[in-house]
Parts: sequence; C-alpha cells; structure tokens
Amino acid sequence: MKLCRYGAPGQELPGLIDAAGRLRALAGHPDITPDTLGPETLARLAAIDPESLPLVEGSARFGVPVAGTRKFIAIGLNFADHAAESNAPIPEEPVVFNKWVSCLQGPNDPVVIPRGSEKTDWEVELGVIIGSRAEYVEVDQALDHVAGYCVVNDVSERHWQLERGGTWDKGKGFPTFGPVGPWLVTADEVGDVQNLAMWLDVNGQRVQNGNTNTMIFSVAEIVSYCSQIMTLEPGDIITTGTPPGVGLGQKPAPWYLKPGDVVTLGIEKLGEQRQEFVAWQPRA
Amino acid sequence: MKLCRYGAPGQELPGLIDAAGRLRALAGHPDITPDTLGPETLARLAAIDPESLPLVEGSARFGVPVAGTRKFIAIGLNFADHAAESNAPIPEEPVVFNKWVSCLQGPNDPVVIPRGSEKTDWEVELGVIIGSRAEYVEVDQALDHVAGYCVVNDVSERHWQLERGGTWDKGKGFPTFGPVGPWLVTADEVGDVQNLAMWLDVNGQRVQNGNTNTMIFSVAEIVSYCSQIMTLEPGDIITTGTPPGVGLGQKPAPWYLKPGDVVTLGIEKLGEQRQEFVAWQPRA
Repeated sequence: MKLCRYGAPGQELPGLIDAAGRLRALAGHPDITPDTLGPETLARLAAIDPESLPLVEGSARFGVPVAGTRKFIAIGLNFADHAAESNAPIPEEPVVFNKWVSCLQGPNDPVVIPRGSEKTDWEVELGVIIGSRAEYVEVDQALDHVAGYCVVNDVSERHWQLERGGTWDKGKGFPTFGPVGPWLVTADEVGDVQNLAMWLDVNGQRVQNGNTNTMIFSVAEIVSYCSQIMTLEPGDIITTGTPPGVGLGQKPAPWYLKPGDVVTLGIEKLGEQRQEFVAWQPRA
Repeated sequence: MKLCRYGAPGQELPGLIDAAGRLRALAGHPDITPDTLGPETLARLAAIDPESLPLVEGSARFGVPVAGTRKFIAIGLNFADHAAESNAPIPEEPVVFNKWVSCLQGPNDPVVIPRGSEKTDWEVELGVIIGSRAEYVEVDQALDHVAGYCVVNDVSERHWQLERGGTWDKGKGFPTFGPVGPWLVTADEVGDVQNLAMWLDVNGQRVQNGNTNTMIFSVAEIVSYCSQIMTLEPGDIITTGTPPGVGLGQKPAPWYLKPGDVVTLGIEKLGEQRQEFVAWQPRA
C-alpha cells in the first residue's frame, strides 16, 4: 500500500495510490500521523477497496507522507564506497546524526540554497518510517517497528557540516533540506528492503547509482541501534545513508548545486522526487 | 510570569505560579503549546489577575512547561572553564548538537540510567524557549524571538557521547535525559538573562556553581547563530551549555551517577529541579 498526503503546504489531505498509480482521496479517513501508523490502522486502510475511493483529478502537490514527525534521524557513511569518496574510514558502528525536523518538506518542493552557500550537495537515501515505539529492540525484531519506507534527499551543506566545528548537525537541517516522499510504502509491499536500486540525477546526468544491498549496516541493524540510544516513536523517520556519487566525491574535483539546477532521484518501489534548487531570499 | 503544565504525564494542564509561589490553574485557557507562545497570547495571559484563578491544592507533578516541542537544540562547551575541564579547546563559534525530543520530561521525574551505562553525567543549563519563528535573525533582534527561559538538566552519557564515533547526539538523548522546567519564565520577568546564578548538587554536595555571565556566547548570539542554520520555531528549546563541575571534570578522577543518587539543580529566577537517578528496566 502506498500512502501519501497531498494538497497545499500545511493543508495536506490523506491519499492512497492505487494499483494503476492513480491518486485517490482517503476521504473520511484521518490524516496520516504518528497516531495512525500502527498495524491496526494500516490493516484497516489495507482492507479498503481503492476503487471505492474518489480519484483526485489534476496534478496534486505531495507533502511529507506522514504529518507530525518528531525525530528525523540520519545515518552517515553507511555505504563503504561513499565513506571512501568522503575520505572517511568505514565506520565500525552506525554514525548517527540529526536533521532538524523543521527542514521536512514535500518531495517536489523547491530546495533553497542557504544564504552564502557554495557547497550544497545531494544524497539519495532510503527513509524508514517508524510505526510503533521501540526501546532496546533486538535486530531480529527491529523490522516489526517499521511502518514503511520512503525516498529521502538528505540535502547537505558541506561547509557547515564539515568545516564549522562540532557535529554534522549544522549542515544537515537548513530550511527545505528534508524532501521526503512522495509516498510511504508499507513494509509488506516493499518486501526485501535490502535489495532496492537507488539513483539520483543532476540536470539529467546520473551521479548516484546504488542499491540498498551494499549498505554496511542493514535497516534492521540501524533501527535496533537507534533504539539503544533513544526512544523510537511512531512517525520518526530514519534516513539510512547514501551510496557514492555525491558532489563532495566528484572527480577530479567536487562540484555543488547552484540556483536553477534540477535534482531528480528515486528508489525502486518507492517512487521519485524532483527538486529545483533556488537562491535564498528572505521569506515571511 | 511563570507558566507551567501540571498533572500526570501526558495529561498535563496549564497553570501559572502566582506572586506568592502558589500554583493556580489556567482553567478555561488553552494548553501551553507552540501555538500559544506568541506575544499576543502571552500578553493576554499576563493580563489575567492570578487571584481570579483557582488554586491547585496539594503537591502537583510538573511536566515540561510547553507541550509539542519539535526541536531540542543544545550548545556545547559554552563556558570556558567547562571546555577546559573537558579537555576541549574553547570553541570559536557555538558547538551545536541535538537532544532527541523523545527524552523530554518533567523537571522532577526520575532519570533512567541507560542499560549498561557507567558514565551518566549531569549538566545544569539555561533553557531558551522560542516564541516566534526565526530565520537568519541578527543578534540585536534575536531576543525578540524568545518567549521565556527555563531550567534544563542536559543529562549526558559520556561513553556514548564521546567514545562511540560520530556526533555527540548518541549520548544526549536517551529516554528521560531531558528534564525541563518547572516553569517557563517569560523574558520580561527574567530581565538580564546574562546574569543568573546556576548551581547543581549531587546528593546534597555542590558540584556546579556558575553564572550565565561567564558564557562564551550569549543567548542572543546563540539564537542568532542557530537561526542561520535552521528555522527556529515556537516551542523549540535551546539549552545553552553548562558551567564547570560535571562528573567528567571531577578531580582527581571523573565520577558518575549511580542508581539512588539524587540530583538537585536550579537557576536564579527560574526555579529548581530534583531527580532521582534509577536503574534501567524494561518498560511497556
């Protein structure tokens, strides 16, 4: 099942993508929030005949497929070849950092290059959406706490991430740096999450081309690990690291995004995103 | 004005502390949330005659004084002598890290020492509660975006913070590691936030004894800085660093908290906290 939220920013309505890829309104159903990600609610939604739901006409904007996310957790250097291109050692355990939740936005909304930034970079990543609370969960039970998966662009400002002291958190959560979606694809529909192709293009040029089967730490290991150091809650999103091919890793020299660039990205079974990168200007 | 939320966890009601220090119910008023921290709402609450509000009898539990906080931002090494005791250089710009919001809890609730932890530590800190949205705000306008202040114990697990690779975030957001409150004291009542005594005792022994007047970066500088790298939103809490005297800095050798220890802490004008530290056990 593919769940989504569509409509104007802040006014999104719940929807569902049918077998033919058409958007249908989950009219009369509650919004998709941390409170509605549990197995019972998902089972109830799965029992609906999509044909009974009204089609949404025209081309709708997608928002983040779950509202009210409280934590946006990120895993660094989770592909060995990406660690190499970043001149970082292969981590012995997951690298955990934070994307400020205020950066969350729809998958196709424009991304604002921060004021003065010259090192705004892309990262296609598999997002894991937590469905039920987890503390100290073992690896073999970790996936029981996952509601579904989504595409994330872990947009990163390398100067602030790497050259301003302290943690990576400084360069990962600028406004608009968290495109998520278009859909939450439930775990049952995804099947083996460790065998999904993933790709990212800049202005139509393929720069990232990977597969979740080369992750250093699996989704189950990551969920288990995070649950040792925090309470995972429904609606939390864990973005699980990027394959090689980011701007920082380009040869012979890194290059980064500039206003007007268009980034498209996708993951097998999870849909695609498209963002235009735009110059910063004050907003109300 | 001192605002608070009192009652059982998850069922807190809004309250106000009157001039005599008595808790009164803000009966008929909305809960204290990001939506109610703006200047208009605060002015409306300030216009209430506290004597007209019902007294709350007995000893109430306090919760976090604002519900629905989306970001719990933390500043590291913001006192020169604490940087020294941590064997860290004095930072040239604020060190920013994250406390996972799921660690937020009332000021006097027990704190759980994580499973297997031998390095659970204390940090009395001034908390800043954001009242209005801020992006790229200048230092001289930064305090306009502050609703008020509170006491925070930035409970820290030093092994996970410092010895497990990646960012400090791993050791800062275990469940129960974010006691906040008892009150949100509005900025007008606090006056000069850069001259507040702060202290922390472990089992009645004074270990931290500082003042916000020795911060490296002022509250205004911190709010401005954070607003350069993220959208600050109403209800966000920024905890601004600790003076010397943490367990990690004890001479001749560090020592840490164990089950049964009681930590009390306070900041001038902002009230006091008391936490019993308890052993981890599975919870539902």
